[in-house]
Amino acid sequence: MTQRDNLKRLLAPRHLAFIGGRSMARALKRCAEGGFTGQMWLVNPQHAQLEGVPCVARVADLPCGPDAVFIATNRELTLGVVAELAAKDAGGAICYASGFAETGEEGQALQCELLAAAGEMALLGPNCYGLLDYLHGAALWPVAHGGKLVEKGVAVLTQSGNFAYNLSMSDRSLPVAYMVSVGNQAQLGVAELIDVLLDEPRVTAIGLHLEGLKNVPGFARAAHKALEKGIPIIALKTGVSQIGAELALSHTSSLAGSDALYDSLFERLGVIRVSGPVSFMETLKAAACGNLPAGPSLVALACSGGDAGLIADYAERNGLALPRLDEGQRGELAEVLPDYANIANPLDFTTAIWGDGEALRRMLDSTLRSDADAALLVLDYPGEETGERPQCDLLLELYCEALQRHGKVGFIASAFPELLPAHARELLHARGVAALQGVEDGLAAWGRIAHYRQRRDALLARGDSALVPICPLPLEGQGWLLDEWQSKQALKPFGVPLPSAVLSTPGQAREAAADLGFPLVLKAVSAELPHKTEVGGVALNLRNEAALEAALLDMRESLARHAPQVVFDQVLLERMATPPLAELIVGIKREEGFGLALVIGAGGILVELLKDSRSLLLPTTDAAIRDALLGLRSAPLLSGFRGRPAVHMDALVDAIRAVADYACEHADQLLELDVNPLLVSADGAVAVDALIRLGE
Amino acid sequence: MTQRDNLKRLLAPRHLAFIGGRSMARALKRCAEGGFTGQMWLVNPQHAQLEGVPCVARVADLPCGPDAVFIATNRELTLGVVAELAAKDAGGAICYASGFAETGEEGQALQCELLAAAGEMALLGPNCYGLLDYLHGAALWPVAHGGKLVEKGVAVLTQSGNFAYNLSMSDRSLPVAYMVSVGNQAQLGVAELIDVLLDEPRVTAIGLHLEGLKNVPGFARAAHKALEKGIPIIALKTGVSQIGAELALSHTSSLAGSDALYDSLFERLGVIRVSGPVSFMETLKAAACGNLPAGPSLVALACSGGDAGLIADYAERNGLALPRLDEGQRGELAEVLPDYANIANPLDFTTAIWGDGEALRRMLDSTLRSDADAALLVLDYPGEETGERPQCDLLLELYCEALQRHGKVGFIASAFPELLPAHARELLHARGVAALQGVEDGLAAWGRIAHYRQRRDALLARGDSALVPICPLPLEGQGWLLDEWQSKQALKPFGVPLPSAVLSTPGQAREAAADLGFPLVLKAVSAELPHKTEVGGVALNLRNEAALEAALLDMRESLARHAPQVVFDQVLLERMATPPLAELIVGIKREEGFGLALVIGAGGILVELLKDSRSLLLPTTDAAIRDALLGLRSAPLLSGFRGRPAVHMDALVDAIRAVADYACEHADQLLELDVNPLLVSADGAVAVDALIRLGE
Repeated sequence: MTQRDNLKRLLAPRHLAFIGGRSMARALKRCAEGGFTGQMWLVNPQHAQLEGVPCVARVADLPCGPDAVFIATNRELTLGVVAELAAKDAGGAICYASGFAETGEEGQALQCELLAAAGEMALLGPNCYGLLDYLHGAALWPVAHGGKLVEKGVAVLTQSGNFAYNLSMSDRSLPVAYMVSVGNQAQLGVAELIDVLLDEPRVTAIGLHLEGLKNVPGFARAAHKALEKGIPIIALKTGVSQIGAELALSHTSSLAGSDALYDSLFERLGVIRVSGPVSFMETLKAAACGNLPAGPSLVALACSGGDAGLIADYAERNGLALPRLDEGQRGELAEVLPDYANIANPLDFTTAIWGDGEALRRMLDSTLRSDADAALLVLDYPGEETGERPQCDLLLELYCEALQRHGKVGFIASAFPELLPAHARELLHARGVAALQGVEDGLAAWGRIAHYRQRRDALLARGDSALVPICPLPLEGQGWLLDEWQSKQALKPFGVPLPSAVLSTPGQAREAAADLGFPLVLKAVSAELPHKTEVGGVALNLRNEAALEAALLDMRESLARHAPQVVFDQVLLERMATPPLAELIVGIKREEGFGLALVIGAGGILVELLKDSRSLLLPTTDAAIRDALLGLRSAPLLSGFRGRPAVHMDALVDAIRAVADYACEHADQLLELDVNPLLVSADGAVAVDALIRLGE
Repeated sequence: MTQRDNLKRLLAPRHLAFIGGRSMARALKRCAEGGFTGQMWLVNPQHAQLEGVPCVARVADLPCGPDAVFIATNRELTLGVVAELAAKDAGGAICYASGFAETGEEGQALQCELLAAAGEMALLGPNCYGLLDYLHGAALWPVAHGGKLVEKGVAVLTQSGNFAYNLSMSDRSLPVAYMVSVGNQAQLGVAELIDVLLDEPRVTAIGLHLEGLKNVPGFARAAHKALEKGIPIIALKTGVSQIGAELALSHTSSLAGSDALYDSLFERLGVIRVSGPVSFMETLKAAACGNLPAGPSLVALACSGGDAGLIADYAERNGLALPRLDEGQRGELAEVLPDYANIANPLDFTTAIWGDGEALRRMLDSTLRSDADAALLVLDYPGEETGERPQCDLLLELYCEALQRHGKVGFIASAFPELLPAHARELLHARGVAALQGVEDGLAAWGRIAHYRQRRDALLARGDSALVPICPLPLEGQGWLLDEWQSKQALKPFGVPLPSAVLSTPGQAREAAADLGFPLVLKAVSAELPHKTEVGGVALNLRNEAALEAALLDMRESLARHAPQVVFDQVLLERMATPPLAELIVGIKREEGFGLALVIGAGGILVELLKDSRSLLLPTTDAAIRDALLGLRSAPLLSGFRGRPAVHMDALVDAIRAVADYACEHADQLLELDVNPLLVSADGAVAVDALIRLGE
């Protein structure tokens, strides 16, 4: 059986075995209480039974290779047990023990042995809490947990067992199908798990809590599969801050990597990034019911002007449109609502008809008869003691019925997170209506899900989500620089547009200039001169021979003074470019774990003023390059700014793609590449300067 | 007695009266249950007693004028009752009835009568839920509520009774001293209430939930008083979106105004703006205990790497520094913690010492022995069934003791909002330790409070918080334009720096130019030409007489073609300005309710690309202008960008202040003012063009 088949056994086990002491007997009992109906064994040599659970002495005594095993033994014993389980064709094993790769070299070595011992058996961990499987009631888990059986739900993968533990306890009614603490990801990583979880139709969305990815190409493949299936992936990626990155490095031995490149990776794959535990849970809840809205428009109801004001603000902030009510709707609502009601979208239907089923039904029918993609009701349950709750239940019930009558996707959000009680949330989830807590977090979550659908189609059309990032081996050392001429010659065959130019010597510059024609630019050429301008190695806009002569003299003198190490024996003569409409910087950045990223940025003063740049992992597509350009803050400069003509977009995209093509072709060698500036005009683009650094 | 004295009686009542039916008897009983110990009367002509509460037939029969009265009668009766109460020297009355200014003209008229009837009696509403006073247990409130008596706490003022109702029910343990639903603010508005609440030492912070302010100058006075006293004001201002603003207009008849100017007003007064109910509650909780941290540095502890990663990210995002642990601390911690613990700030002390009081105490002592301004512990309570809660209580207890030993301000945040139970929150509040729910919202809230202290000192030093915004009467109509020459002459006496110039005629331009000297700029002058450049009314950089002659001819021709209505009889000759280091736009904007705002923005292409501008309400100070300039995104251009010299900052500030001075002097007339561009260089600033529009 392949590792993948064995992972499937681990995620849908017919039988469980726990290997360890008394506390594992309790863990087994929790599985029984949790609804697991298959066979269960406890492996423990000291006892015939523990807390009523029968024990076998050793793995060899098990009647068969269990589909899922939780190994709670210490680090040393774990290796042997894993080997025995593999020999017995067990499906998958969870290694709880710590003291492996996360603790340094010796542990790293031990982890390799562990991996070898597992063979084709699926192996989760080591150094992890394990797996909570709420589809089958299998809690392969060392301690208590707060979840319960579900028919469908989200899969959560986290690098922090504590995060999983607390999430399972959290009182937000997030329906969880699987919760996996991935630990060191020695064998099974986030990528492998996502890939298999996507084959389980009862998994409605996937949540990731990560410090970093160990396998970017694998993740990209899995995330693209999710995008094709329309299963949203919601990621809480930590290690954004410098300190956070340092912490991540020391925790479950993962690579935090460069956070900006995670944004690029997630954008490319339609992965929804959230900023914290609350947005993580609420966004997963918005996706969990499986009824994703077709678009971002919303018809919203509340029983107070205060709530309506909040809805309006958050809808706008999250790009959710609130189409106006039509005449007919307004007329009907005016009949059923008091005159101080505010008949708009969002609707303030006031508390005047509170508890009046007939009026509420009419109000709901008039409002939900709308083209909006989804409906929102803001509803807060006051305390029991008020006796108001039955009226809230009534409204909730009528709302769900109305959604069904009108075939609308809908959700409920409470203004205050705690004022949507568990019984109401569960009732809503059972009807496929998301129950979001907090109108601000709720509308943000809904916005993410509503935009996911559209972004998904655009990304699949754009095509780059299907491309797997090249992740070449890391390169040692500083490598060496190509000079400007060599760099340009290297880029030329790939179609990077260059100014007409002649490589010459100071002595022959005059003749060369005659052939080339004025006005022109004179540059000193040397790999020792990455920053020629600063040392007087560039003379612009020379209009005639005399000017050229003067420039040659100045340059020789200036270089002798400021860059004595440079032999002034080569000069580059180029036709002076006409003033551009925009200046861009196009570069290639090499990042451990991600491979190569194409960086497109605004040039001139804007690069420092705006830090205005976009990164695309390679390989990429023309459409993605176009999106990146249009995503720049300075994009208006490209599309006809202040009555100027627009730039030649196709030519610009071709020029940038040519740089990307060079990079892909030289992925194994390329350390860094810089085209600065790339001048863009109405009739094309031209790379005025270029620098390439290669390594072994 | 003055209205203010009467308001004080309303906020600290010795006796209460309710005027209305059966439900008011229940409201009275709630006061008794809520701990109100003074006298209480129910005014009801139909009954001798209701639900055990004795009634008097009419206001005249009350033994004295009550300090606080809740009037639940309908709109029509309310007027008479208010008059009777005023006659009886009641302190303050709450008008619950709606149907006043919020419903249009007739209601507006009625509201004026109501106001007159009240005289010096304090009047809250109409169209409001009233007042919850948890210092005295007086619930002048028509329905149930969720709060209870406190010794000290925050005062919350809201325009939405529903928001107050839900907030009182919300399970977040926010200690509320006063909750006021302000309704139409016919007499008592947000400004008057803040002013008096600030005299109550048990009020630790003030929370505002607003759609808009009716009285900006009054609010500014009150907020400045709060700033001087160091009582934070936290504002949830809605109506940010266009729709939100429309809703606000139709709700409690308040003005939403321009949201950006609220930002300016709040920034000027150190008012902390939040975005939603959760950040409102959590930020108020961070302030409620009254122990504000001296600064933004933090020493943080968590029992998992996952939590530590979140802390690090949110600390950085909220400008909270995490100073490194020193050698001594690291050594001590290494002794007490396992080797896989991550000894840093934030500290991951792991669950290894969970429940070990001695080890926890040592760990806390080593960590809290720090210069950091405050301490944070991230702690999540699992479910009861886990039996883990006593160990959480132990850690919480030890943490509070350690804070006391080390004299540190501290707070606790749970990673998941619901995992900090009520008993823990109340225990913490009792010890002056903020109990924040959700590590993301918690650190954001703490960041706001930590920065408040510093901002407060800076603002008091800056001085503009003490200045009351001029709010001149609104002006009718379009007013009239001054031409460039008139505009510049109007600004000159105030010290706005102008290029040397001569006003002349096309015929005498040559002589004028001779006196002025070349190179120069030629401009057509006419109030009909607000946009002269577009119609060829400007010729730059004329180097000699010939160029001037040519320009005059072109200009006459171009104007004849593009602006035939303009008589070409006046020209302005100005010395050509030298290329500046930066271009700014300085303008004055008139906004209903706010009076005049000084707008300072980046000029040239940046204004469109960056929308880079700051607004200051007038009057303002030099220091505030300087802050606004340094707050621009393009500020680097002013302070020596790319090795260029820095601009002459003092001269720049003087120039902008001169524009502000002109505006203040002409506040009653000025509709709009535009200095564009203001060219800034190393030796000064010069207003190259100017435009003023005045009204009646």
